[in-house]
Amino acid sequence: MLRCRHLVVALALAGGLFALPVFADSGKPTPSSQELLAKSSAAEWRQPDLNNLLVMQLSTGRVLIELAPDFAPLHAANIRTLVREHYFDGLAIERVQDNFVTQWGDPNGNDGGDPSKIRSLGKASHTVAPEFTLPINPKRPWTALPDGDVYAPEVGFSEGFPAARDPVSGQEWLTHCYGMVGVGRDNGPETGSGSELYAVIGQAPRRLDRNLAVVGRVLEGMPLLSGLPRGPAPMGFYTQPGQRTTIQSVRLAADLPTAQRPAVEVLRTDSATFTALIEAKRNRRDAFYVTPAGKVDLCSIDVPMRATKVTGSTKP
Amino acid sequence: MLRCRHLVVALALAGGLFALPVFADSGKPTPSSQELLAKSSAAEWRQPDLNNLLVMQLSTGRVLIELAPDFAPLHAANIRTLVREHYFDGLAIERVQDNFVTQWGDPNGNDGGDPSKIRSLGKASHTVAPEFTLPINPKRPWTALPDGDVYAPEVGFSEGFPAARDPVSGQEWLTHCYGMVGVGRDNGPETGSGSELYAVIGQAPRRLDRNLAVVGRVLEGMPLLSGLPRGPAPMGFYTQPGQRTTIQSVRLAADLPTAQRPAVEVLRTDSATFTALIEAKRNRRDAFYVTPAGKVDLCSIDVPMRATKVTGSTKP
Repeated sequence: MLRCRHLVVALALAGGLFALPVFADSGKPTPSSQELLAKSSAAEWRQPDLNNLLVMQLSTGRVLIELAPDFAPLHAANIRTLVREHYFDGLAIERVQDNFVTQWGDPNGNDGGDPSKIRSLGKASHTVAPEFTLPINPKRPWTALPDGDVYAPEVGFSEGFPAARDPVSGQEWLTHCYGMVGVGRDNGPETGSGSELYAVIGQAPRRLDRNLAVVGRVLEGMPLLSGLPRGPAPMGFYTQPGQRTTIQSVRLAADLPTAQRPAVEVLRTDSATFTALIEAKRNRRDAFYVTPAGKVDLCSIDVPMRATKVTGSTKP
Repeated sequence: MLRCRHLVVALALAGGLFALPVFADSGKPTPSSQELLAKSSAAEWRQPDLNNLLVMQLSTGRVLIELAPDFAPLHAANIRTLVREHYFDGLAIERVQDNFVTQWGDPNGNDGGDPSKIRSLGKASHTVAPEFTLPINPKRPWTALPDGDVYAPEVGFSEGFPAARDPVSGQEWLTHCYGMVGVGRDNGPETGSGSELYAVIGQAPRRLDRNLAVVGRVLEGMPLLSGLPRGPAPMGFYTQPGQRTTIQSVRLAADLPTAQRPAVEVLRTDSATFTALIEAKRNRRDAFYVTPAGKVDLCSIDVPMRATKVTGSTKP
């Protein structure tokens, strides 16, 4: 049924990164993401620092998270401590709230668990100074987006992460886009330790920006976090142990045997290919699109990742 | 563990509609959605026209979709014809693409099916004139949002749906926000019949606006569409029949026996309470928030729905 097969192609283009190439009958079609990535140079890709790469092994598969220590150094350090103490091993995904977040940590600290069995944070700190914004550092790469933003004066990408800037206050911050990872906390701004983490699984809840520490991004495995049954209790908490997905282990890639380190690389967000991807998404001209948007919002841009055959090395 | 219990409350506020009330120690806290809704008047709620209310019974539960015939009358009419011919009964959710859409229809029209078994559209049309935008009608209610938009000159709500307007072209259109339902099509703008429908399950793909017919919104049951395993094939298509969720039936509420009609009502988007909800979301002041956003984007606003004990009546 050609109608539906064409639908597949058309929506592949609409969907983004791994589109089948389709050419309009006339005019110059927008290059597909696949075409742009195929022409990228090796230098436009980077291997994540293995000290910033979390490997979370769920009962359902592997999730890779890249930490952003340049934006939240204290939180990243505390999370590394928790990980090295195997804090997360045997804990679980405890909450999936539709169009909001998936949260993981110690179910005994939340509804349905046994508070007497709460896991100790060990050498990690129970509180961390807020890192909700930080001064703009002109030395950090900044790929500005041209179309504005509802929430912030300037938005763009820095070191692989979506971010916002306010030139008046001189501050910048990572933004709550799909797949970004944040640190749950209590009312006190310093009460987030990194022992409870969440990933955004819906429309970007940008109202959380500057109110929580955003510590990284899910590079691989989002479907394992987003494609879960929503929890039946308020805010999507699961009520029975059997509903929770178990975290078998979380390790820093740097601590894994060489053969087990994830071999992945991420497109540099200060590369020409990334800029071309943004432009292709802004103005899609092909056989399907009637009206190119002419614009793109920050959280609609994916940062491509790919598997490599080369295992990464740890920075000294 | 109070830390985590407080987190529950804090994130409930962050999350939106069904928050537990929390009051700051000093100052005037922002009323919670729960409080605002509790004070709403009966006149601020409306029962969806039962001729616009689709009841999709999945093997996993019920999904309610409100059609928007004022914005896509021809598509809505063709969908009603398909539904009344029981076109969808026995078909399936055939595709779930992470951070994009869940699509349902005839799997035999797509990868993995048997094209010789494609279901006939019966009396419904195979093609429908494009209804991607329509002239602004000053008689339609319009609740404008104050904070701008990346994609459109004006955004707001009309008759319960998120929408955008361009005063220069004089056109308006429904927007691809979370939970909105659109009509899949081939490259030809007229090739969407309504036999393939999709719902947005991730960051709003606003680049689709004005390129596809948006025909309604999921009122109830989004988790049954969003909380599914993502399909393994390109674009999230399932490859095996066992992976698909079966559509047992789709009916117009008006065609159901009175006792089976969904008893639900939706907050009017031209009501004072809806405006108050928007303002509360823009500027959240409570014990948790350090920095109220001061802004809100179109697709971060939910339109509340609630169950009633009164069964709706069909408009003549």
